[in-house]
Order: sequence, then structure tokens, then C-alpha cells
Amino acid sequence: MRRGCGVEDGEHGAIRIAPDEVAGPIAELARFGAHGETGVWRTVYSPEWVAAADWYAAQAEAAGLAVRRDAVGNVWARLDGTEDGKSIATGSHLDSQRPGGQYDGALGAIGGLVALRKLRERFGQPRRTLEAVALCEEEASRFPTANFWGSRAIIGQIAPGDPEATIGYDGETIAAAMRAIGLDPDRCGEARRDDLDTFVELHIEQGPLLEQQGLPVGVVSAITGLRHYAVTLHGTANHAGAFPMDLRRDPMAGAAEIISGVVNTAHRMGRPAVTTVGRLAVEPNGAAIVPERVTFTVDARHPDPAARARLYAKHEALIAEVAARRDLDVSWEITHEQDPCVCDAATVATLEAAARALGVPFTTMTSGAVHDTQQMAAVAKVAMVFIQSRDGRSHTPEEYSSPEHLAAGVEVLTEALRRLAY
Amino acid sequence: MRRGCGVEDGEHGAIRIAPDEVAGPIAELARFGAHGETGVWRTVYSPEWVAAADWYAAQAEAAGLAVRRDAVGNVWARLDGTEDGKSIATGSHLDSQRPGGQYDGALGAIGGLVALRKLRERFGQPRRTLEAVALCEEEASRFPTANFWGSRAIIGQIAPGDPEATIGYDGETIAAAMRAIGLDPDRCGEARRDDLDTFVELHIEQGPLLEQQGLPVGVVSAITGLRHYAVTLHGTANHAGAFPMDLRRDPMAGAAEIISGVVNTAHRMGRPAVTTVGRLAVEPNGAAIVPERVTFTVDARHPDPAARARLYAKHEALIAEVAARRDLDVSWEITHEQDPCVCDAATVATLEAAARALGVPFTTMTSGAVHDTQQMAAVAKVAMVFIQSRDGRSHTPEEYSSPEHLAAGVEVLTEALRRLAY
Repeated sequence: MRRGCGVEDGEHGAIRIAPDEVAGPIAELARFGAHGETGVWRTVYSPEWVAAADWYAAQAEAAGLAVRRDAVGNVWARLDGTEDGKSIATGSHLDSQRPGGQYDGALGAIGGLVALRKLRERFGQPRRTLEAVALCEEEASRFPTANFWGSRAIIGQIAPGDPEATIGYDGETIAAAMRAIGLDPDRCGEARRDDLDTFVELHIEQGPLLEQQGLPVGVVSAITGLRHYAVTLHGTANHAGAFPMDLRRDPMAGAAEIISGVVNTAHRMGRPAVTTVGRLAVEPNGAAIVPERVTFTVDARHPDPAARARLYAKHEALIAEVAARRDLDVSWEITHEQDPCVCDAATVATLEAAARALGVPFTTMTSGAVHDTQQMAAVAKVAMVFIQSRDGRSHTPEEYSSPEHLAAGVEVLTEALRRLAY
Repeated sequence: MRRGCGVEDGEHGAIRIAPDEVAGPIAELARFGAHGETGVWRTVYSPEWVAAADWYAAQAEAAGLAVRRDAVGNVWARLDGTEDGKSIATGSHLDSQRPGGQYDGALGAIGGLVALRKLRERFGQPRRTLEAVALCEEEASRFPTANFWGSRAIIGQIAPGDPEATIGYDGETIAAAMRAIGLDPDRCGEARRDDLDTFVELHIEQGPLLEQQGLPVGVVSAITGLRHYAVTLHGTANHAGAFPMDLRRDPMAGAAEIISGVVNTAHRMGRPAVTTVGRLAVEPNGAAIVPERVTFTVDARHPDPAARARLYAKHEALIAEVAARRDLDVSWEITHEQDPCVCDAATVATLEAAARALGVPFTTMTSGAVHDTQQMAAVAKVAMVFIQSRDGRSHTPEEYSSPEHLAAGVEVLTEALRRLAY
């Protein structure tokens, strides 16, 4: 083992990762909460999640890293630097959708471990402290308002009352779920970090763009801004046969016009604008009854602040216009709001240089998905690395990335961490 | 009591009904399955329904009518005529939506009783046999495929396997529900009647047209044809942020376009065409996931056979076109099909003459709702009488008709039965 030789650079010194070195541990991790052949169902603080976190900690110790679990259950693996100063950190989340795939979150958590192990083996102690982290929660798949629980704890954005006010789909509080596995919800504040310099997250793309361009890797220069509207249209329930069309106050007809409109608005605005209506409920939901009420979500995203504002304004104007014209009572609330995140230019440049040095083909792109990285931006310089997703599938057991692409992503991450820390 | 004086006719001899004579028993009947202040929740063969049927039978006996319950639980009240021959019958159903109002079905069942009691009291034995019937089931509110169970039994349209194959929302068979109250499902065939000459059904309009015209009564000359489609659009579930608009196979966008289209088609075709999308379900129904599958119903109605065929063809063409253009897999099935029913011209004329003779303002109209009468048309000459519904509301506890309008409807029915039977 060579220590302190981190000044080595360029093609001939770069660390190469064999495909199985990433795909292997990802498959191991996927046993915890395995769902069918290829899926994962691993919600935060569940028994499967505890087993996964224990496994992660054991892997980190075996790699010669110092392991620490923080107050919300984030698992930190540390390789101390020779110099004082803030850490260079990397990682992603351990929890999954219900069910999700093997790669979302897992890749970044494992990729960080592999990178630190490889760097320690090849180059020994870094100049700057390196840390890999398995964040406890990102998906809000057990507690619908918990999103980014792990990274929010790190940036100090969990308020004292939050653990008792964060209610799961089964009615339990996240505070109770924490206590059940030996965590003290009153101590969430202790997870806060003010000693992180940089955070780089490796993640699957979850979209089809890299595949379409035939590229293994993307460097992320900005992460989308997102707004969720919950829209309620209220009309008058009537008999589907006896009530003439011209007299109806039909919220389903209004919802259909709005849904078509918002989808077309985003489509016409062009990439990377996206708008999705993924959830809809009808009352009373009978085949022969003009509905009384239709509620639906509108998820609208754009990474550019000005374009995002235009997108939201168009959507709101359409909702109001359709409701007024159709004599429907309308209300909406913004249930989720995430500002766009522009990544740190120097860190993006380091990632691009790393990919170039390795000869890994890449593009620089924006992320249409939200990520823990957006939270971490409050306390650190951030950027992300994406790898190709087959068919752009994610949040499903069908999610897949090839072992070669997994390894290419970890190579770029490792080389960038070397440049930042050695 | 005058017997055999049925030749009396015209304005001065007509039977007048006081408002309370109809509203009173309707309020009494509404106690069985009362739901809130004004609603009724009375599904076929439930304890509330049994109590209502017993009450109806007792009312009929008290009115001097011969009571008989048939094999499916229809309650028949009979006033024998002096001549042999087929009966003149009237009635409607005892079951309700969940919850429904006090008037849907109940008015026609009670109106028949009141008419026969009044005719017997005033004119004694008729020339032709008169019957009033409380039909057991029309709404399919407990067993979704049971629609018209009572009238279908009368016309012989319950097949031997049907009772075991008709499954309730709670999983029970209608056969088990019949046995539980002492009916033998193997004997449904015995409810068949081939000795009905005429069937007239009194019912609330369930729409706003009579109210808009300021009329208490409508004479129904045709009942709409109806088709229910169950449409499934299957696309590809994708991440709502990471998947560009131009690459999506979004079944929600397709459903919205189809729903807007079918609603507009019926609207442009003009009254009495109606098309309703009342039920819709999304999978997986997450705010941040482009849906994989959207299923919805299309209820389309027109009383004119040719116009109805055009309406259905336009709907089917639109569904196919949108699915193909958006690269969605589409399937649909016709889950309910009801041919239009043209009422018997002579019976319609009798009802019109009765209303004229009584000085009750009326219009002749079509029914956009389906009714037991459409089934009864297989074995009898049929027509209907509507009365005004407040705000056109029905299938809700808010359903309301004024005591004066209830009485006006029963007056027209009574006078028409007098003309037909005396």
C-alpha cells in the first residue's frame, strides 16, 4: 500500500474498477428487502433497512474505514486526511420505493465505499478527509412528508417537533419508528454537520437521455426545481343519463381539460420542462354519476428559475381559466416546493476532467429528478454523477443499469475524489 | 263504495290526491334504511329492505288489495277485475343507491298502491285486473351486475346460474343473500309473468328539464339506450422528473384527451345525447410517477337508435385514434348495454289524455335514465310518468320532489289506470 502519493494523476495512474466490484455489492445489498426477482422494498427504519445499514457499516469497517452512525441513522465511513479542514463527502440513500429497484440510492452509497476503499488501497491516507455516507431516507416511501430525512438532518432542517408530526402511511410517527430501533428522535439535531466542504452524489439517471446518446455517464450541472400542486375541482354530482351536457358542472370534464393543457404546456416548452399528473381521485367514482369532486396532483419541474416561473404561471392560469369557464369551484395548494439547485462549477469541472482523463464518454446535463444533493447544497459545494438507466426506468423493480456502467460511474467518482482529496 | 262504475270519465269525476297522501307514506318508507336527515341506504335483501317490503305488503293489505310475494321478493298487490285477461300493472323498485334519496323507486312503488287504493275506494272492482308492484332491485348497489333483478325475473331473464354468479361488493353471492331471507334462488324462474298487458312506471325525473320548464309532470315516450365502456390505457411508468415529455407513453395524458373528446362529442351532438366519465383509476397513482395504467368508464346514451350508433362510433374512433397516436396499448369492453325503448304509443296517449283531463301541465319527453320499464317492455306495453326533481338531483340524499309534484304524478297515474282498467 502506497500512502500519501495522491499527487499522481492522469490516464496511467487512474484507478480502474471491474464491473463486478460494484454490481457484486449492489446485488448483496438488494437481498435486504428483496421484492420478487429484481425489486427492493426497504423503507426507512424497517427491519430490512436496519439489516442493510448494519451490512453497510460492516463493509465499511472491512474496507479499513472508521464507521460512525449519526442521530438519525445515517452511516458515515471516514478516511481521515493528513490536513485539518472540512471533508470531501460522497454517498446516497439506503431506502427504496415500495417496491423500487436495486440501484436507486444503493449505487451512490456503495459507490462511495468502493471509491474510498480503492483510494485507500492505492494511495493511502489522503490530504483531506474523505467520507462516504449511506443516508437513511430520501424516498418518503414510508412517511409521505419525510423526504430527505437523512440529508435534512445533516443540514439542520429537522425541527424539534418534526419527528412526532411526521406520520407514516400506517399511522405511526417517525419518532416511534426511530425509538423502535434504538434512535432517540429528540437528538436529531445532533446529526447536523458544518464541516463538509464538498458533497458528490453518484446516482442512476432514472431517465432515458444517456441511453439515447449511447453514453455511460453524465455530469450534473443543475438539479431541477419542482413544485407539486394538489388541485381540487368541485362541481355537482348528477345522474349520468338525466342531466343534459349543457347544464352540467362536471369536474371530470374540467380535470381532463386541465390535464391535457398542463401536459401540452410542458411539452411545447421543450426539454427539460416536465409536467406530470400521476395521481387522481374521483368522488363518488360511479360509472353512471357525473362526479362531484375530482382531485389530482400536478408535478411541474424546470431547472432554470425563470423558465420554471413561467411554467408554473401558465399552469395556474389554465387551472383558474378552465374552472371559471366550467363554473367549477377550484382550490389548490402547493404540497411540495423545491428550488432548483445549480451545482458548484469547480466541482462540476473536476468531474468532467476526471471523466476525460479516464476516457469515459460523458455529457453534462441537468437532473429532472430531485436528490439529497439539493439539501446538501445548503452546507457544501455539490455536484452529481449519473450513469445510464436501461429504458430510463426507475422506481420499479424493472430498473436496471449494466455492471459496466455502474463501474464507469464509480471510476469517475473515484478519480474526482482523488483530485479533490489527494 | 261504488262498484263497477268505471265508465265515469273526465274532469268532474277525476280522483284528486292530497299532497300528504303521497309524501306521508314516502317519509314512512324512508325510515327503513334512513341515512342522515334525508338519505336512504337500502340495498336488496338487506334487513332494511326486508322491513321495507314487509311494510309495503302491510300497506297493500290495509288498502284491501291481495298481496303476493314472488320468487325473488317482488311484492305484488292485486285488485282483480271483473273480466279475464292480462293485468294493467304499475310500480317501481324498493332498493336505493348507497346512499340514495327518498324518492327514486319509492315514488313509483307507493304511487301504485295509492292509485289502486283510491280507485278501489272510488270505483270499486275494475273491469280489468290492476296490480301494483314493489320491485326488489334496480340499482345494482349491492351486487354490481344485478341491475333490474326484480324486473328481469318477471320477464324471465335470470338464467339458472345467475344467482350464484352474481357477486356483491362484499364478496357474497346474491343466491346466499336470497337464502338468508328465506328465498330459494333455484326458483327465480317462477317469478316470470306472461299475463301483463301494460306496465306504467311513475318515477322522479332525476334531471332538471321539468323544473326548467316549470312543469310538474312529464310523459315519457322513449327511454334512452345506454352503453358502458370500460377503457384501459396502458403506457410506461416513468420518473416524473427524469423522463422527457416527448418520449413518454403517458396513459393519463391519453385519458385526459379522450375524456375531453367524448364529453365534447356528446355536447356538440346536442340534447338528449349524454356522455359521462364517472369512474377513473390510476396505477400506481403516485404524484411523481408517470402512470403505467389508467382505467375509466364511458357512459354514453341516446334514445334514438341511429343517433346512438353515431355517438358510440365517434367515441370508439376517438379512443382508438388517441391511443394509437400516443403509442398507448388500449383495450375496452362493453360492460353494460341497454337498447333504447320506445314506449307504447297508445299508453303514452292515455297518459297525455289523463294529464290533460286533470289540467296537470306536462310535456312529453325522453328519459335519459334507464328504468325497470325497459325490461318490462319485453312482456308488456309500457310507458312512464316523470315528476319534477329539484335541481335535477338524484342518487344522493339531496334528492327532493315537492309533495305537490308527488301528488300530481300520482293523479296522472291514477287517472290513466282508470282509463285503462275501468
